[in-house]
Amino acid sequence: MFSHETLSPRMEYVQYAIRELFPVAERIEKSGVKVTRVNVGDPVPYFGTPKYILDAMAKAAHEGKTSYGRPPGETPFLSAIANRYKRLYNFDAGQDSIFATYGVSEAIQFLNASLMGEGRGCAMFSPYYPAYIPQLRIYGGEPCFSTCDEERGWAPDFDDLKKQLKKAKEAGTDLKYLHVINPCNPTGAVWGKKQLEEIAAIAKDEELLLVSDEIYDEMIFDGKFTSMCQVATGQPLVVLNGLSKNWCATGLRLGWAILHGKDAHMGTLRDAFVRLSSVRLCASVPAQYAGVEALNNEKAHSEFIKGFNKEVKNRSDFCWKRLNEIPGISCQRAKGAFYLFPKIDLKLSGCRTDKEFILKLLEKEHVWAVQGSGFGVGGHLRIVTLPPLETLETACAGIARLMKG
Amino acid sequence: MFSHETLSPRMEYVQYAIRELFPVAERIEKSGVKVTRVNVGDPVPYFGTPKYILDAMAKAAHEGKTSYGRPPGETPFLSAIANRYKRLYNFDAGQDSIFATYGVSEAIQFLNASLMGEGRGCAMFSPYYPAYIPQLRIYGGEPCFSTCDEERGWAPDFDDLKKQLKKAKEAGTDLKYLHVINPCNPTGAVWGKKQLEEIAAIAKDEELLLVSDEIYDEMIFDGKFTSMCQVATGQPLVVLNGLSKNWCATGLRLGWAILHGKDAHMGTLRDAFVRLSSVRLCASVPAQYAGVEALNNEKAHSEFIKGFNKEVKNRSDFCWKRLNEIPGISCQRAKGAFYLFPKIDLKLSGCRTDKEFILKLLEKEHVWAVQGSGFGVGGHLRIVTLPPLETLETACAGIARLMKG
Repeated sequence: MFSHETLSPRMEYVQYAIRELFPVAERIEKSGVKVTRVNVGDPVPYFGTPKYILDAMAKAAHEGKTSYGRPPGETPFLSAIANRYKRLYNFDAGQDSIFATYGVSEAIQFLNASLMGEGRGCAMFSPYYPAYIPQLRIYGGEPCFSTCDEERGWAPDFDDLKKQLKKAKEAGTDLKYLHVINPCNPTGAVWGKKQLEEIAAIAKDEELLLVSDEIYDEMIFDGKFTSMCQVATGQPLVVLNGLSKNWCATGLRLGWAILHGKDAHMGTLRDAFVRLSSVRLCASVPAQYAGVEALNNEKAHSEFIKGFNKEVKNRSDFCWKRLNEIPGISCQRAKGAFYLFPKIDLKLSGCRTDKEFILKLLEKEHVWAVQGSGFGVGGHLRIVTLPPLETLETACAGIARLMKG
Repeated sequence: MFSHETLSPRMEYVQYAIRELFPVAERIEKSGVKVTRVNVGDPVPYFGTPKYILDAMAKAAHEGKTSYGRPPGETPFLSAIANRYKRLYNFDAGQDSIFATYGVSEAIQFLNASLMGEGRGCAMFSPYYPAYIPQLRIYGGEPCFSTCDEERGWAPDFDDLKKQLKKAKEAGTDLKYLHVINPCNPTGAVWGKKQLEEIAAIAKDEELLLVSDEIYDEMIFDGKFTSMCQVATGQPLVVLNGLSKNWCATGLRLGWAILHGKDAHMGTLRDAFVRLSSVRLCASVPAQYAGVEALNNEKAHSEFIKGFNKEVKNRSDFCWKRLNEIPGISCQRAKGAFYLFPKIDLKLSGCRTDKEFILKLLEKEHVWAVQGSGFGVGGHLRIVTLPPLETLETACAGIARLMKG
């Protein structure tokens, strides 16, 4: 009854590189061998969700906050979000422009359901977070990629971006938005004010909505982060964020989207988000009350994030140095988040593709990393730098052995 | 920048009747007048989420169950679901065929993302749960309706169903599934074994996947419920359910889908669900541990649900009698869930449509009900029978006054 042809053609694009080797890893572990995991960007197993956040969730649930909530989000949560952006970035977000979602994933679903369809598309920088592609393709959107400049620490290449936008338009794709992720998964790059200004100017010129995924915006090793909301004021902008990373609460699945811009420009999109949020009723209500405390308790959060960044910087730098010592590997230093994206000399490793490399790495060395091609740039690996130094050393030693062929 | 034309054409269909009058109700309440709500099917404000469920959620969160979970669902939760179906319906569901989702809404999204697209569609009985339509249209699906027989307690009309299926096929729509909701929102009808057998036979003949939304399956006033999984064994079947209603936990947003059928028939669809669940990472992990306790603690649940059904039956019957006393109103008795779907004599009421009627009902009588046309059958109202008798009397009295014109 259900052959491959029965599925909608959109399903062809629904893949997720980060968990692709799950069956292989499971088989290895069942045989009694430990797998060294540097594949999933989840801080919770290493740092834990802060207790004050979970206490707030439990308290709210016991106080009866378990009904259907307001579809766009609980008022105290939207208010806590608005206050955070005022405090951190001096940015005024009206509560009516904020939407609580099941993680950033759902916010991107809303965006693509609202704007994508046949002949439409969006532009994004490559390497990119892999789930962006199926989330776009499911709604009929076509991606247009601009590859970042690895040698300059994975900086945006503005000439290439303009070229790619032009090419996509000439090919008839009606581009609706430009998607940025900063700090970057998978490279650990953090783009600064001038780079963001240039991106914002290009989006404005090309009449593209700017979408900025800033889920790692407090996970910065040195200096201060600039949010797109500080530079792209007045132009159509969607800022995405959530509890998963900065507040170390991935399993709670809570994100948000801020839709900024004059009513004449963004009113229709906001109305679309209101309707989409109504159709799925609401985001988790207890999680939203966890979010109220997470965002409002500045003292507890500031202590947590300082300790986190100090530790992760140490792990990231250790791993970065160690990788660069391996013949055939070169790696840009990360400035934030918890990823490294080393280039591998495939010829030297004797593998034809990075996918073959990571499969061998898992089968032979029991180290689970992700292939760069899953993020749009082949010949690379993505390494998660959250585990303790010993684990990172085990992972790097495995990579080193494999590079010897 | 974002005109109505900028939005994807799919957004035209994204509407949700149940909350449409929210701005009107909010205005009335801001003026200091109390609104009598019989519009939202949420048992939590009246009965509360049982404490043992929330305790389990809090305990799991504090024990560190806040990481990303397995994309299809946490093993203990899938196991609790499998055990429930074995216990209640003697139905064997393998854990690999069960998916934990953000409410039933997301399970239906997975279904439509997998199977819908241009030229495709699904059949459903009318009146239907309103969110089914945008959830279908978002993925390009076309609905085909078979209206139930009001005079026979909103029973399925098999001749009409066959006729509608034939018509849709002749019109070139490639129907993929037949969608049943039993017990029914909005009518309160509960279909029995013979009716389900007939539906299953038609689905089999027509090579349609059978999709059975049974979110109210323990909310039965008299007798025993028959699940579609008891009659449609061996044929492709998806059973949907969740914590929202039976366990009175709407705000936790946790549902599930069981994909039943031989691998040759359903393997491809199960694989599609695996991939779709990976792309959005996981459902709320603490909520899934709440679900483990909700489903495993038979004693606590059985006490809760008995008390609930007794009370709601009383409220439903009160409201049903009271509505039938009003000239121009006729109402079928409910057998389960917590809805009534009375027919209104529009001519007598002086309103042209049921939408006009419910707007007047809210503006003049401050009673908030939902128009039947939002559920696909005009000239009706949907009344939620969860509130206490005094509230239901206030709602009925308002309707009676409005019927006098």
